[in-house]
Amino acid sequence: MEFRPDSDNASPVQADLLIRNALVVTMDAEARVIDNGAVAVRDNLIVGVGETKDLDDTFTASRVIDGRRKLVMPGLINTHTHSPMTIYRGFADDLPLRDWLYDYIFPTESAFTSPENVRAGTRLAIAEMLLSGTTTFNDMYYYMDEMASVVDQVGIRAVLSEGLIDFPAPNSPSPAEGVSNIEGLIKKWKNHPRLRIGVGVHSPYTVSPHWLKRGKELADHHGLLYNVHLAETRWEFDYIQKKFGHSPAKHLHLTGVLDHNVVAAHGVHLTDEDIRLLADHGVGVAHNPQCNMKLASGVARIPELLKAGVRVGLGTDGVASNNDLDLFDEMRTMAFLHKLNSGDPTVISAREALEMATMGGARVLGMDQETGSLESGKKADLIVLDMNQPHAHPVYNIYSLIVYSLRGADVQHVMVDGRWLLFDRKLCSLDLGRLYEKVEGIAGKIKEEAMRLGIFNGH
Amino acid sequence: MEFRPDSDNASPVQADLLIRNALVVTMDAEARVIDNGAVAVRDNLIVGVGETKDLDDTFTASRVIDGRRKLVMPGLINTHTHSPMTIYRGFADDLPLRDWLYDYIFPTESAFTSPENVRAGTRLAIAEMLLSGTTTFNDMYYYMDEMASVVDQVGIRAVLSEGLIDFPAPNSPSPAEGVSNIEGLIKKWKNHPRLRIGVGVHSPYTVSPHWLKRGKELADHHGLLYNVHLAETRWEFDYIQKKFGHSPAKHLHLTGVLDHNVVAAHGVHLTDEDIRLLADHGVGVAHNPQCNMKLASGVARIPELLKAGVRVGLGTDGVASNNDLDLFDEMRTMAFLHKLNSGDPTVISAREALEMATMGGARVLGMDQETGSLESGKKADLIVLDMNQPHAHPVYNIYSLIVYSLRGADVQHVMVDGRWLLFDRKLCSLDLGRLYEKVEGIAGKIKEEAMRLGIFNGH
Repeated sequence: MEFRPDSDNASPVQADLLIRNALVVTMDAEARVIDNGAVAVRDNLIVGVGETKDLDDTFTASRVIDGRRKLVMPGLINTHTHSPMTIYRGFADDLPLRDWLYDYIFPTESAFTSPENVRAGTRLAIAEMLLSGTTTFNDMYYYMDEMASVVDQVGIRAVLSEGLIDFPAPNSPSPAEGVSNIEGLIKKWKNHPRLRIGVGVHSPYTVSPHWLKRGKELADHHGLLYNVHLAETRWEFDYIQKKFGHSPAKHLHLTGVLDHNVVAAHGVHLTDEDIRLLADHGVGVAHNPQCNMKLASGVARIPELLKAGVRVGLGTDGVASNNDLDLFDEMRTMAFLHKLNSGDPTVISAREALEMATMGGARVLGMDQETGSLESGKKADLIVLDMNQPHAHPVYNIYSLIVYSLRGADVQHVMVDGRWLLFDRKLCSLDLGRLYEKVEGIAGKIKEEAMRLGIFNGH
Repeated sequence: MEFRPDSDNASPVQADLLIRNALVVTMDAEARVIDNGAVAVRDNLIVGVGETKDLDDTFTASRVIDGRRKLVMPGLINTHTHSPMTIYRGFADDLPLRDWLYDYIFPTESAFTSPENVRAGTRLAIAEMLLSGTTTFNDMYYYMDEMASVVDQVGIRAVLSEGLIDFPAPNSPSPAEGVSNIEGLIKKWKNHPRLRIGVGVHSPYTVSPHWLKRGKELADHHGLLYNVHLAETRWEFDYIQKKFGHSPAKHLHLTGVLDHNVVAAHGVHLTDEDIRLLADHGVGVAHNPQCNMKLASGVARIPELLKAGVRVGLGTDGVASNNDLDLFDEMRTMAFLHKLNSGDPTVISAREALEMATMGGARVLGMDQETGSLESGKKADLIVLDMNQPHAHPVYNIYSLIVYSLRGADVQHVMVDGRWLLFDRKLCSLDLGRLYEKVEGIAGKIKEEAMRLGIFNGH
């Protein structure tokens, strides 16, 4: 039900939760910021957003939370990551991208990407995402059934795209088997309230046109998102240009896969024509600035993409190239990076940066009707930040404060789909103690193997 | 006293504190990382660093701290900031540097930089620095006597440089009065165990050669650090080039002020000749990457400066252009920035980044004999981080983990000069509750005045 402050409510409406007296940043179409604001939740939905005095008159709630010195805002949306790669955090840093990928990550993944390790890595990733305010993520990896079980149990919102790649993948010897895996996943997980299955084709340089197209047919048949790494490096751009005579974006276009269900990750090396192609076909872009910096891949032309009307969301990429899943510092670095790169400090304002990490991400994932802002009728995906901290004072402009000064560690509570998954910085649906042991055990084996292969660069 | 694990100690040595069973990252000349490590402190000094079993044999301590799942490392060093500017956090963002400085910051500063506001802003800044692991900072501002009182009382380590500038400064109508202020400060605060007075000349574009030189004579006479903003923007470079016929760095050289007691902040726009000049004269550089990104000033040529043998430390600059004082995210962004800018992901390794924020900073401030690493005989300036967190797992390379994954909010305890200033994330020598009220009160008045002047860009 829509709450209307001017309606003449005869009797109060029942809610499950009322957060009152908070600073509420809605990220709705009017960009409402409510100084003494309140949010009401019933079941898994937001049922009211407004002034505390108005919501007090409208709702009686079974639970009331005092929001003084707290900020309530929509949960952040990570449009591109590989969650299980948390087990490789810091395994191979300060290396060139191709060495990193082909000499370190691919061989180690092929040895260690097991169902058990995917489960552990996903749990670690979700813990980290919740602790830094992410409520939805879009993932490309292998063993998606394992990931789906974890997402189902822990309670976060996700799009999970099983990966197709030309060479043998950890859980499928061929792309054909990958397609059949995805069909199984769709059948098993359809109609889940929080998780969607997607199709992930690794990239133009690792997937042949045949399988790029086959993946798209599969996605279209079932109405799924189609994820693909696109033009991440200069090397990729040159390689595709040489092999096919076109840029990677144009290659995808000529293969016939570009449309509004496509999420192109990175999009660093795009020509003017490529930007027009992405805009004309309604492709969404997942921007991963920190990963692109760390691997020296380049700077995506985000101001130009936004100007062309392309939907852009923010992503962290996997932990092996970031090395965290914190979208607060991703937003901040993103805004700083584009100011620097354009030579213009007015480029990507704090509000635009926050938009990208919330509604922008929801639009890229085709979820803007259900999440990304605090509005009546949307899913109750919200985060509560502790403003009782030195770096949260003073407040002149709330967008500046959120993007340039607050951080993931300020997130105190996280609700997804009406359920608290983090409360007072305690995870409600994950046991961390046992998880750390598990992850260190896996890392011990990876270290041993890396030493055996002569590729360990630890201390 | 130096602890030697191989010495034949007949009876245990008394210490005030022993931290045992921790992961100890020393940043000493041998770059020792001790997996089951211990640190012993007596009075204000580190008296032992080594394996827990060895220190257990050597010391009896009146207080013992269990360091399991904790990391002990040297406190971080902020080589360039303007602490009291915390009161302007988020006041003027997403603006070009010259507008930001001349239309927003300078007029607001001249109205609001009072002794009372400097005290409040400094307290807020120190709170934030301690909460993110900084134990030493180098400051340039006005009303340094007020700042010195706060530093004295709170217990952090600092170099405080009163600013000289050609136009009337908040606390001195002329540079001549500024010089006499500094003389008063030297007299009052000399021989303080933790604070040193320095000379701050604002920049080549705001201070005439006469006062640049006069400041240096003063610094030399008393053996003080000489702080100067240098070549922060392209505009400054062009302006000085036009006015004097040389680059800003060469202008300082020809003015006769460059030597090993100079800390040049920013150094973004340097020619090859400038880099040689800085190297030849032993000038230290305070690198402020996030501020330079946010204001689109450019990228300092840090890899080239390091290669030329220039001492480089890390700084945040003031909060009005950052917008925080967290050196953990400064380190991380700094490493990412130089990888991107050089097109080479091997440039500025995690270990080099941490070196810059610890020993590098100590060297720039001429304090490398007393702080910057964990070594017997150095001041007990150390921080303890909580490793019991998802983003701190797994650990392959501890430098990668510290720089790319850990953050200021992971700092649990902070010791400066043998005294705990932060313990279990509680500040031991600052009352935050009253401080927030105070700061919000000041901000309210700044907002009103900014609205009157038509320069308020809050929400």
